[in-house]
Amino acid sequence: MLVRDAFSVPAQPVAEAEGVTVRWLISANEGANNFHMRLFELQPGSSTPWHQHSWEHEVFVLDGEGIVKSEDGEHPIKAGSVVFVAPNEWHQFCAHPEKPLKFLCLIPATGACPVSVAHTEKEGQ
Amino acid sequence: MLVRDAFSVPAQPVAEAEGVTVRWLISANEGANNFHMRLFELQPGSSTPWHQHSWEHEVFVLDGEGIVKSEDGEHPIKAGSVVFVAPNEWHQFCAHPEKPLKFLCLIPATGACPVSVAHTEKEGQ
Repeated sequence: MLVRDAFSVPAQPVAEAEGVTVRWLISANEGANNFHMRLFELQPGSSTPWHQHSWEHEVFVLDGEGIVKSEDGEHPIKAGSVVFVAPNEWHQFCAHPEKPLKFLCLIPATGACPVSVAHTEKEGQ
Repeated sequence: MLVRDAFSVPAQPVAEAEGVTVRWLISANEGANNFHMRLFELQPGSSTPWHQHSWEHEVFVLDGEGIVKSEDGEHPIKAGSVVFVAPNEWHQFCAHPEKPLKFLCLIPATGACPVSVAHTEKEGQ
């Protein structure tokens, strides 16, 4: 059994997402063969890329405020919000301009393929 | 995209675990085919059964204090603790006698088989 504090796991910068870090809390390194748990931290005003991929996200917001954008619009999120991003759905997580945003984001173990990031007029959304 | 507050999902009692409820935050009902997210809430002094099953748990403690028991001993847990319970590993989550314990527990979608609960001298551990 692995038991550890989430914040003892090093935070790594996320490519194409200034002000965003990720901690891999439970991954293949811990023997997790089916799905993996990550902790994302967004500084105020920062966001993940507007992007899509073939795997789903299961998200739980731990702290802060922000919005999640999808093709069907924007949704406010805060501590206690749950988000399910379906496979191939475009999405982006954005921290409030003055507040950080911290959330768990779990992915299937197969979610290790290249990510499609929009470099079109959608960039920055 | 599904976005909702975790506490808008009804809490259901857990069999063989007095004082314990579960909210199924993301499951097959939401189109999650690979793994499912549940939120467990344990009243002070309550615990899940000492049990094992063939699938893993990925746990993140949201609030409160307690211990997780395993065959290798007891581990204190609190907000921010991460626990990986490997397949077939015996385990039990126990709230502090005077404090509740609230945690996310994710399982693979295949984790719907019967659970082995100890009804031996280990019962109540």
